[in-house]
Amino acid sequence: MRIARFSIDGTVAFGVVEGDASTEGGPVLDIIKGHPFAEFERSGQKIPLSKVRLLPPVLPNKVVAVGRNYAEHAAELGNEVPEAPLTFFKPSTAVIGPGDAIAYPSFSSALHHEAELAVVIGRMCREVPRERVKDVILGYTCANDVTARDVQEREKQWARAKGFDTSCPLGPWVETELDPSDLGIMCTVNGQQRQLGRTSDMVRSIEDLIVHITEAMTLLPGDVVLTGTPAGVGPLNVGDEVAVTIEGIGTLTNKVIKRG
Amino acid sequence: MRIARFSIDGTVAFGVVEGDASTEGGPVLDIIKGHPFAEFERSGQKIPLSKVRLLPPVLPNKVVAVGRNYAEHAAELGNEVPEAPLTFFKPSTAVIGPGDAIAYPSFSSALHHEAELAVVIGRMCREVPRERVKDVILGYTCANDVTARDVQEREKQWARAKGFDTSCPLGPWVETELDPSDLGIMCTVNGQQRQLGRTSDMVRSIEDLIVHITEAMTLLPGDVVLTGTPAGVGPLNVGDEVAVTIEGIGTLTNKVIKRG
Repeated sequence: MRIARFSIDGTVAFGVVEGDASTEGGPVLDIIKGHPFAEFERSGQKIPLSKVRLLPPVLPNKVVAVGRNYAEHAAELGNEVPEAPLTFFKPSTAVIGPGDAIAYPSFSSALHHEAELAVVIGRMCREVPRERVKDVILGYTCANDVTARDVQEREKQWARAKGFDTSCPLGPWVETELDPSDLGIMCTVNGQQRQLGRTSDMVRSIEDLIVHITEAMTLLPGDVVLTGTPAGVGPLNVGDEVAVTIEGIGTLTNKVIKRG
Repeated sequence: MRIARFSIDGTVAFGVVEGDASTEGGPVLDIIKGHPFAEFERSGQKIPLSKVRLLPPVLPNKVVAVGRNYAEHAAELGNEVPEAPLTFFKPSTAVIGPGDAIAYPSFSSALHHEAELAVVIGRMCREVPRERVKDVILGYTCANDVTARDVQEREKQWARAKGFDTSCPLGPWVETELDPSDLGIMCTVNGQQRQLGRTSDMVRSIEDLIVHITEAMTLLPGDVVLTGTPAGVGPLNVGDEVAVTIEGIGTLTNKVIKRG
């Protein structure tokens, strides 16, 4: 099931996506009564997907991200795979949705894309045992861990380099029925392929990451865990259109603009 | 003015602290109608401070903290003062209030206290010019940037080392009328002095930090900026009582317990 969050005529709601581009009339959204973090009913009220504005599919309290979780990507930046998973935060103020603009920060001249599989947390949890990890996951979406690479190198801790406004595109929706263990993940810029990998190449599995993170901290419904980026990261420039596609989920597209 | 957040009989509210330990009958809270992030009225309904449970004085969406902002502290851990301010996040799930327990994390054997002056943000802001910094600040409180020192050294990025549950005690209240430029700041453990410094020894001023942070990201009402810790950091053990005292604000006291 694909759950989108959207706005139409000033109202914000969640809806289940039915159909796809091949469906006659195009896909529709069946509006959810309430929210998807508990058992919910579909209202039966359907809106064409083309009529709504898709929003970030969740409003995370925090995004916990993991660095250097694909060996080839660690190597391309001259880094080793760390002995312990390398975790950092992206704040809620960094999150944007599909179609929203990535605003090139004034203090960087080396913005990079990083396509990542995002895990959406479904319930409040802490110290999750490995065998219970699947129970705390609502589903999966696409993410772009947009990074000011020059600032990242200069500032040692990455709050500004990876936490600036618009640095965390998420979307287009949450896919709740998906085996995430071997999915193709791709990033294109202006239609040209830049990154290509498979989630089976992660150094640490999603189970490892959730166990490691929740050993330290509580995750809340809607929190997001980013699972690292495959090789091929590279520059984004003003005017570029960057697209993250993950097999079984869909495509998250964002344009880069000058910060106004 | 001192603004506290508290609970009594299951109700949560903000109140203005009137009087102090020398006042006959002790200090009282004048309950605020609504919240302190806009103009507010006092209700005139007064409750003895001794009858309430103080809560974290604000509920930050995020805490942005700054490392190595006192030269003597940087030196005591063998670090240089960084060329650019070193910024990192502590998540909302790390925040606890005065009197709440710091739970010693299972994955560390070197928990440290770090007494810090906390700046509480009063309004949504981004790209704040230096001369407007005072306008976005609601006030100041005490913070303890509790740190798993061994994990910090091991994991390079500090999300777990400084972001675990209970790692961000804040309180006891927000002091809104205070010149923060030269305040004594002290940390005691079981009554023994450990850290002692003055905010005038910060490498970067509060103005510098707010300009630097908001160049990158939006701060929201209730967000907190931690301004670094003076020299004298050291271990916390289960059973310890750690107290952060800042001149003109008050004392934030927390006990260290075994994580249950």
